Amino acid sequence: MNVLARYLIESFFPLEQAAEFIAGEQSSGTFVPVPGETDELKQKFRARVVSLQELSPLNRRPLPGAIDPSGDERLHAGEAIIAWPLHNFGPSIPNLLAAVAGNLFELRELAGIKLLDLELPPEFAERYPAPKFGVEGTRRLMGVEKGIMVGTIVKPSIGLTPEQLRPIVRELVEAEIDFIKDDELMANPPYSPLAERARVVMEEIERGAQRTGKRTMYAFNITGDLDELRRNYETIVSAGANCAMVCINLVGFAGLNYVRSFSEVPIHGHRTMIGALMRHPALGIDFKAYQKLARLCGADQLHCGGMKNKFYETDEQIRQSIEAVRHPLFGGYSCLPVLASAQNVTTMHVTWQRLRTDDLLVVAGGGIHAHPGGRAAGVRSLRSAWKAAVAGVPLEEAARNDPDIAQALDRFAAV
Amino acid sequence: MNVLARYLIESFFPLEQAAEFIAGEQSSGTFVPVPGETDELKQKFRARVVSLQELSPLNRRPLPGAIDPSGDERLHAGEAIIAWPLHNFGPSIPNLLAAVAGNLFELRELAGIKLLDLELPPEFAERYPAPKFGVEGTRRLMGVEKGIMVGTIVKPSIGLTPEQLRPIVRELVEAEIDFIKDDELMANPPYSPLAERARVVMEEIERGAQRTGKRTMYAFNITGDLDELRRNYETIVSAGANCAMVCINLVGFAGLNYVRSFSEVPIHGHRTMIGALMRHPALGIDFKAYQKLARLCGADQLHCGGMKNKFYETDEQIRQSIEAVRHPLFGGYSCLPVLASAQNVTTMHVTWQRLRTDDLLVVAGGGIHAHPGGRAAGVRSLRSAWKAAVAGVPLEEAARNDPDIAQALDRFAAV
Repeated sequence: MNVLARYLIESFFPLEQAAEFIAGEQSSGTFVPVPGETDELKQKFRARVVSLQELSPLNRRPLPGAIDPSGDERLHAGEAIIAWPLHNFGPSIPNLLAAVAGNLFELRELAGIKLLDLELPPEFAERYPAPKFGVEGTRRLMGVEKGIMVGTIVKPSIGLTPEQLRPIVRELVEAEIDFIKDDELMANPPYSPLAERARVVMEEIERGAQRTGKRTMYAFNITGDLDELRRNYETIVSAGANCAMVCINLVGFAGLNYVRSFSEVPIHGHRTMIGALMRHPALGIDFKAYQKLARLCGADQLHCGGMKNKFYETDEQIRQSIEAVRHPLFGGYSCLPVLASAQNVTTMHVTWQRLRTDDLLVVAGGGIHAHPGGRAAGVRSLRSAWKAAVAGVPLEEAARNDPDIAQALDRFAAV
Repeated sequence: MNVLARYLIESFFPLEQAAEFIAGEQSSGTFVPVPGETDELKQKFRARVVSLQELSPLNRRPLPGAIDPSGDERLHAGEAIIAWPLHNFGPSIPNLLAAVAGNLFELRELAGIKLLDLELPPEFAERYPAPKFGVEGTRRLMGVEKGIMVGTIVKPSIGLTPEQLRPIVRELVEAEIDFIKDDELMANPPYSPLAERARVVMEEIERGAQRTGKRTMYAFNITGDLDELRRNYETIVSAGANCAMVCINLVGFAGLNYVRSFSEVPIHGHRTMIGALMRHPALGIDFKAYQKLARLCGADQLHCGGMKNKFYETDEQIRQSIEAVRHPLFGGYSCLPVLASAQNVTTMHVTWQRLRTDDLLVVAGGGIHAHPGGRAAGVRSLRSAWKAAVAGVPLEEAARNDPDIAQALDRFAAV
């Protein structure tokens, strides 16, 4: 049984040789042959290059320290699939990463190295059960049988006390918004202790639910050290919370998996700090591989970036990320893609056109809070814009009969 | 009370403006001003640019997605120190990272962004106690009062069953080596279950200790998901182990801190996968910042790379990493620098010349296992070479009267 890992490789060595460096480093792994490194052992444990595809060298600078043995400055580029025997590490995500990622990024023989994708054997599905809620479970708890899910982020990101947050949540709940989340900058800070915030927020949500029958989902940011994760989880759940937000890269996949081990509410997976791993095209780990590990570790909802957002990724990259999360893993591991960052009424059409699905949670911060007609108008404008997109009605046309869209368009189109 | 974070910034925007983007993104953080973002709130919570130092633009390509508002393709570069109010997040390392790192790496306004260093207020020292052993505790357990500490890594990295490992450990223990570690590729795999390995290894170590009085330290790799971390720790400690190895990036700082919460043996901090965060000069997190967090989370020993190693870093970078670990944090947080990767008899002189300290753990894999005279000769050769270096005797001269050095020189000088 093997793990198949796909890599982007750039090297001054011929591609075949560069791929063999990767396979070798992570099996025998020292600078000289050592006693005991028998043919039998190599046969059983050595990683194997399964396929190689040469690419035309990209116009890119080599990573620091890359060695050029021939001195001809000729950079080779390609994709390689390498098979790693599962019995080298067993179905443990941290130890999988030691093999398929580990020291690779440091090799001088490589001028560029990115882990693009992973194909995992079923032993991982046995060890890591599927997210407990996924798309269907999230819909059920939100009471949104079909259609897009609309949410928002607490803004300003930091500084609001629970009592300052109260009227904002009330307004959003009265607008029957589907989802609200803490900003990732707000976990359990002195100015807004989580226990107090959970109490205030859940009071407003319950009050709204009793009036309208709609129970907004609120993702409280429980991120912290492990003792905090557990304590924060218990704090919010005992206040009646129905979603826990975890910043995956700040607690590790192991931390996410830990939360899944006890969580009885959906886990909202935030990917803050991912740019450090992903932004360079020839270093780090691609989202395709990343999202599989996040789903194995229990993320019911996962941030993918949003169309036309304020960060570096192109819409096409984001489309691919969302499609990756929507693609079944071991036939399941359902996870709801979360679209965030600068989302507003002007981003709905492109989102629908590129994705053609309603199984999305669009989270708009400024796009709701800064709507000239207030937050309720912000929520309505997003839903109406989405309906127009699905119906094939251009946004400007929809705006003619819809003051919520018109105001939003006026406010956000030029931003 | 503030956290001071130092960044390398590259941007097509003027440096002042780029630094303000960083401070702004991580406080108000949405694409338009929102209600409630009062001057009072900003005053209290906004991060502040404390200093800016323009650097001559490096000959580097911008990160993907960097925007160039004026279109003049002029890249600005510099270092900025930004002050983050501690009350925004409190002394919690995961939540600290949300603020000082978080989404920064994704900002289109930045063409390069690396977190270089962190200066933390004393609240962090209150929350995160110092490593329990550090240099002195490690020396005490190893029985090495002074002088360099010499260790090795199990090689081949993978594939040895416990019974195949037994004679290797015996040979090393009889050579009175100070330290042995599992390779980071070997945690608890089917071919070498940790319980069985710990039993075999500790039998050999105890037998050696009874004969020679020297008790070799062995770092068992307990890396895994959190349940595995705890279980593996208990497995090795109940077998009598005296060191636990944790791959920090595979379990997160939170995972490391979790191990520290219960560990009664030194924690050997391995940094595999760090290249993904560190190798690009203008993306990610520098080791200076990283090592402080690792020490706060309890690493008693920390990998820093070794001189003339097989990875991308220069000797000068490695020297700086080691000096950083040796520099007191809050007046303490002692942590033993671990030098590894292609270490052998030929790397001792440069190590001494650059560092002028004995408080180092040099871990040689091939440099010991592949010594022509056997592993004991490998251990002796390293100790003798170090003594020669300290005494100012060139290696070639020392080799004349020392067959262990001579053989090693013959074997490794050309590698």
